[in-house]
Amino acid sequence: MSESAEPEFELPRLYRHHAFACYTQRPPGHPRGSCGAAGAQPLWDRLGKAIETERLSDIGFTAAGCLGFCSAGPLMVVYPDGVWYRPTTAQDIDEIVEQHFKQGKRVDRLVMVLTR
Amino acid sequence: MSESAEPEFELPRLYRHHAFACYTQRPPGHPRGSCGAAGAQPLWDRLGKAIETERLSDIGFTAAGCLGFCSAGPLMVVYPDGVWYRPTTAQDIDEIVEQHFKQGKRVDRLVMVLTR
Repeated sequence: MSESAEPEFELPRLYRHHAFACYTQRPPGHPRGSCGAAGAQPLWDRLGKAIETERLSDIGFTAAGCLGFCSAGPLMVVYPDGVWYRPTTAQDIDEIVEQHFKQGKRVDRLVMVLTR
Repeated sequence: MSESAEPEFELPRLYRHHAFACYTQRPPGHPRGSCGAAGAQPLWDRLGKAIETERLSDIGFTAAGCLGFCSAGPLMVVYPDGVWYRPTTAQDIDEIVEQHFKQGKRVDRLVMVLTR
């Protein structure tokens, strides 16, 4: 066992950005709401398709269960940046792809500032 | 519009560590296998329970769909660290909670080094 707090080897970085998008779907009228009820599905479809057709192979995209903060949906989080987004239109998705994923610049107008 | 590449505001960090665990379950004999078929469920149950009972409120834990690398499962990834783990026993889970989540030290023996 090492006494050092330093990791013993450098890990390769699998993805430049890894996005997790909430796919939770609660029925209409459910008191918590859900990203699905807030119209998430076509947005995530567009996001997944853009990553694929633009061959952004260093961008990870994973379906997630409830990320919490249900009233703030549709919600996605991008790591390692730790940026939470609330896109609501196809244009928002395109901007996240173009600006964040391709240029590495946060899309401030779509950021959700969440606190525990 | 700012000309600067720097973000215009500092984002609070919602979670110190945010774990995403694959809940994909494919039927027995499926050629791709799955984390579920590899015995993931009781491990993630234990992980979720530990985070809750130890009140690790700055640790996020989210169910994920397929993370890829299905033959390497059960798979989880911890951000912002970008560490991929393959725990297979209850003890492995306890070690990730104790060492990574509480002490911030990577559990090297459980790390999966993945490449695209």
